[in-house]
Amino acid sequence: MVDHKDKRRGTKAEGGSTGSPKDSHYARLRRAHRDEKAGGAPQHRPRPRIEPGDGPADGLVWLYGLHTVRAALDNPARKIKKMLVTRNAAERLAIADLSALPFPAELAEPRDIDRLTGSDAVHQGVLIEAEPLRPKRLDALGETNLLLVLDQVTDPHNVGAILRSAVAFGAGALITTARHSPTESGVLAKSASGALEHIDHIEVRNLAEALGELHHAGFQTIGLDSEGPAELEKTFSGKKIALVLGAEGKGLRQKTRETVNALARLDMPGAIRSLNVSNAAAVSLYVAGKWLRGSPPP
Amino acid sequence: MVDHKDKRRGTKAEGGSTGSPKDSHYARLRRAHRDEKAGGAPQHRPRPRIEPGDGPADGLVWLYGLHTVRAALDNPARKIKKMLVTRNAAERLAIADLSALPFPAELAEPRDIDRLTGSDAVHQGVLIEAEPLRPKRLDALGETNLLLVLDQVTDPHNVGAILRSAVAFGAGALITTARHSPTESGVLAKSASGALEHIDHIEVRNLAEALGELHHAGFQTIGLDSEGPAELEKTFSGKKIALVLGAEGKGLRQKTRETVNALARLDMPGAIRSLNVSNAAAVSLYVAGKWLRGSPPP
Repeated sequence: MVDHKDKRRGTKAEGGSTGSPKDSHYARLRRAHRDEKAGGAPQHRPRPRIEPGDGPADGLVWLYGLHTVRAALDNPARKIKKMLVTRNAAERLAIADLSALPFPAELAEPRDIDRLTGSDAVHQGVLIEAEPLRPKRLDALGETNLLLVLDQVTDPHNVGAILRSAVAFGAGALITTARHSPTESGVLAKSASGALEHIDHIEVRNLAEALGELHHAGFQTIGLDSEGPAELEKTFSGKKIALVLGAEGKGLRQKTRETVNALARLDMPGAIRSLNVSNAAAVSLYVAGKWLRGSPPP
Repeated sequence: MVDHKDKRRGTKAEGGSTGSPKDSHYARLRRAHRDEKAGGAPQHRPRPRIEPGDGPADGLVWLYGLHTVRAALDNPARKIKKMLVTRNAAERLAIADLSALPFPAELAEPRDIDRLTGSDAVHQGVLIEAEPLRPKRLDALGETNLLLVLDQVTDPHNVGAILRSAVAFGAGALITTARHSPTESGVLAKSASGALEHIDHIEVRNLAEALGELHHAGFQTIGLDSEGPAELEKTFSGKKIALVLGAEGKGLRQKTRETVNALARLDMPGAIRSLNVSNAAAVSLYVAGKWLRGSPPP
């Protein structure tokens, strides 16, 4: 897992002026910013350069929310194109000088961002337009003993929460199929609360083949299934574990069920025997992580 | 925890006709249903009696989705006022005769239900208008050794997923404050996937006082906190456990932190040290349930 915590960018000054039209635009912005800070009415305050429409520009994504944007700023692999930020959010992000950022950034009112995201999105006063992170191939998998594999889980709220739990519980990568896979979006990124920037996303064309490669690499692959023959804790055997989860309702595909080393269930004594998929992922990652770190299974 | 699994209603015939105008309305409905089944064009197909507007009638809720409605039908405490259902969904719910249901039920097209719920809601062809379940008081708490307490968690997706995990992992009740508490809604009920009908919701006016009463009743109250002094598993001591979770970002209120028997954290080795609240609830319930059922802490 890549940890970018100490590689902050975007808060350090990178000044310098060449007198180009672009620079005078930012000079105006700086003046407007200074004027606002000084309490005066902003002069020539430029209109936000991200205009509402159907969404972000082609091939780009909008990311919003303080945790999400902070993590994106701290990730050297994240290519940011533009930022809209309120004065308050800029302070909370510890951005002293918008013009020092290595991309265009503009002061905005909360309602300017509402107009873009819709008022349901908890943007907390900051939105960036950025390139999505490029998924990696399986052969780029780094050293790790815990993986999470999703078999056609696409709901962005769930996948976002899953990414967050995967990072918190120390998974080294999230593996999905290229088709029927989650796509990066503002909703997914907000639910992930910064986790997108902390974990590799690996896309594979054929999940059964990928599971075979994981077996060669020493992973025990375990498919979660409420009808699984044994409890998850009693199924662990390897030094490396890949947990495989299917979509709610549909579960794992037949080919996936046939390919994993084992099917296992979580112990559920109650009247309902299925969980929200992100909750199932969190519990599975937690007990697998505990087991790999040497605790006896509960 | 009440388990209504075997107390189905709504699928048994409760015929009888008194020749009232209401009965002839349902006679028409039955004919229309029969005609549709026979492949003919429905004659006199009545318009759905739930009309789109701002939402359900005063004091009522709309519940939709197959699991959610099935569980509501099976819950004798749930007062259903009306149902809209597609032919396909009626079959999947094993409702052979709409007119035999103890409330008005009408055949509809998926788009009729879309118009009510909005097209984002996965209603799966069935919607009911019903009374919300009445929250109980703390003195109505039944025999249980596991409780979940929410300190001002209100997001309906999260609370729905939490209810589902609470039922799956055997919690006896969900306790919330009367103010800043989740309200029953279609979104919450859909996320709960039927769990609403399987667990008591207890509302208390003063959470600190309620925690005191739980202490008297023999519960160890444990507040989840990412900065807690010990891991959750090392904190368990009692025979009865009440887990207390706060809202994301805000966490537990100061008074709550001062009142619980212990604060504890989940072991998170990764770069992110906070979870989606429903994921934190699922993991906590899982390990507490395991511990109460006699497994040693991992």
